[in-house]
Amino acid sequence: MYKSWGISNIYRNACIDDDVNIGWFCEIGDSVKIGKNVRIGAFSFIPEGVTIEDDCFIGPRATFTNDKNPPSRKEDWLPTVVKKGASIGAACTILCGVTIGEGAMIGAGSVVTKNVPAGEVWCGVPARKMGDNEISISYRT
Amino acid sequence: MYKSWGISNIYRNACIDDDVNIGWFCEIGDSVKIGKNVRIGAFSFIPEGVTIEDDCFIGPRATFTNDKNPPSRKEDWLPTVVKKGASIGAACTILCGVTIGEGAMIGAGSVVTKNVPAGEVWCGVPARKMGDNEISISYRT
Amino acid sequence: MYKSWGISNIYRNACIDDDVNIGWFCEIGDSVKIGKNVRIGAFSFIPEGVTIEDDCFIGPRATFTNDKNPPSRKEDWLPTVVKKGASIGAACTILCGVTIGEGAMIGAGSVVTKNVPAGEVWCGVPARKMGDNEISISYRT
Repeated sequence: MYKSWGISNIYRNACIDDDVNIGWFCEIGDSVKIGKNVRIGAFSFIPEGVTIEDDCFIGPRATFTNDKNPPSRKEDWLPTVVKKGASIGAACTILCGVTIGEGAMIGAGSVVTKNVPAGEVWCGVPARKMGDNEISISYRT
Repeated sequence: MYKSWGISNIYRNACIDDDVNIGWFCEIGDSVKIGKNVRIGAFSFIPEGVTIEDDCFIGPRATFTNDKNPPSRKEDWLPTVVKKGASIGAACTILCGVTIGEGAMIGAGSVVTKNVPAGEVWCGVPARKMGDNEISISYRT
Repeated sequence: MYKSWGISNIYRNACIDDDVNIGWFCEIGDSVKIGKNVRIGAFSFIPEGVTIEDDCFIGPRATFTNDKNPPSRKEDWLPTVVKKGASIGAACTILCGVTIGEGAMIGAGSVVTKNVPAGEVWCGVPARKMGDNEISISYRT
């Protein structure tokens, strides 16, 4: 069971696991997959094609996408994956087709345009590597 | 007739043409003009002074503005125009006083601070030219 | 008394002074302090730990934060202060632990990562000094 704290638009076919908290004013699209123990900040937009694994933190105002050259046909949309334990800061935009690695951290206000390796910290527009996520490393070992 | 899919704040004097789809959690202000066959993504903020022409795609979380030095008086506000067939990626911010040209494309997460010529692709903060919008060129010829 | 124009999530323990206007789709968290004569734009996210002094203008889609390395424990959260008469443009992200000085102005779409001195104009990602806020200087003298 998940908990939605306020008014959100959650599609009936979104697949949301246990211990997920969803803030106010979110949209979670068709067939989105969200693992266990995930926190979705207020105002997040998570459209069809996005998978968020267990133990992730999605900050407020995350914007995920699925269409590289909008508007394109659904068969051209690209999937996006946020791997286990990753943390995405407030107000980030994640381009479709990207994988954010296990335990990675994305700084607030970043625009992620390519894959982020596990355990790294990325920030900026476009986001670049800034360091390693010590918290995540200790958490994983 | 337009279709609003969810809870939005659409001012009574907004002038919205046929075949316009408006996502959840939008605000569309007084006297905004939206042409035919436009898609307005969820969470978009389109205040007074903005005109969006036919066949545009406005991605989720677009933020338009009308006040260059907030808070200023209404007579100092600047108009913004998105010309026919332009496509604005997710989570873009468009400064007021700007024209986005016909068939132009703005990459996700950009901040547009000046006019974008027709058919060009602009990205970044502040947005700069990255190339030409091939899709739009073929569409227009 | 404050006025909330639409659907917002305002915590009961937020401390909001007179002549405050709050746009649609805002979240204002527990124990947030907002002074007199403040305008909070639509879609703003102002979580616990934020103080906004009198006469500020907070543009639409402001994102404040309180957690530097999310998710961390509440005792590690950092406070953020927006001093009297400051103006924050549309769609800005303000990292926690920052003070925005009296009469400062932040350009639309900026990500503020450090303290902004009084009366200065800062823009960009990360935000940097671009000049002085003439309006604010005249206002204060």
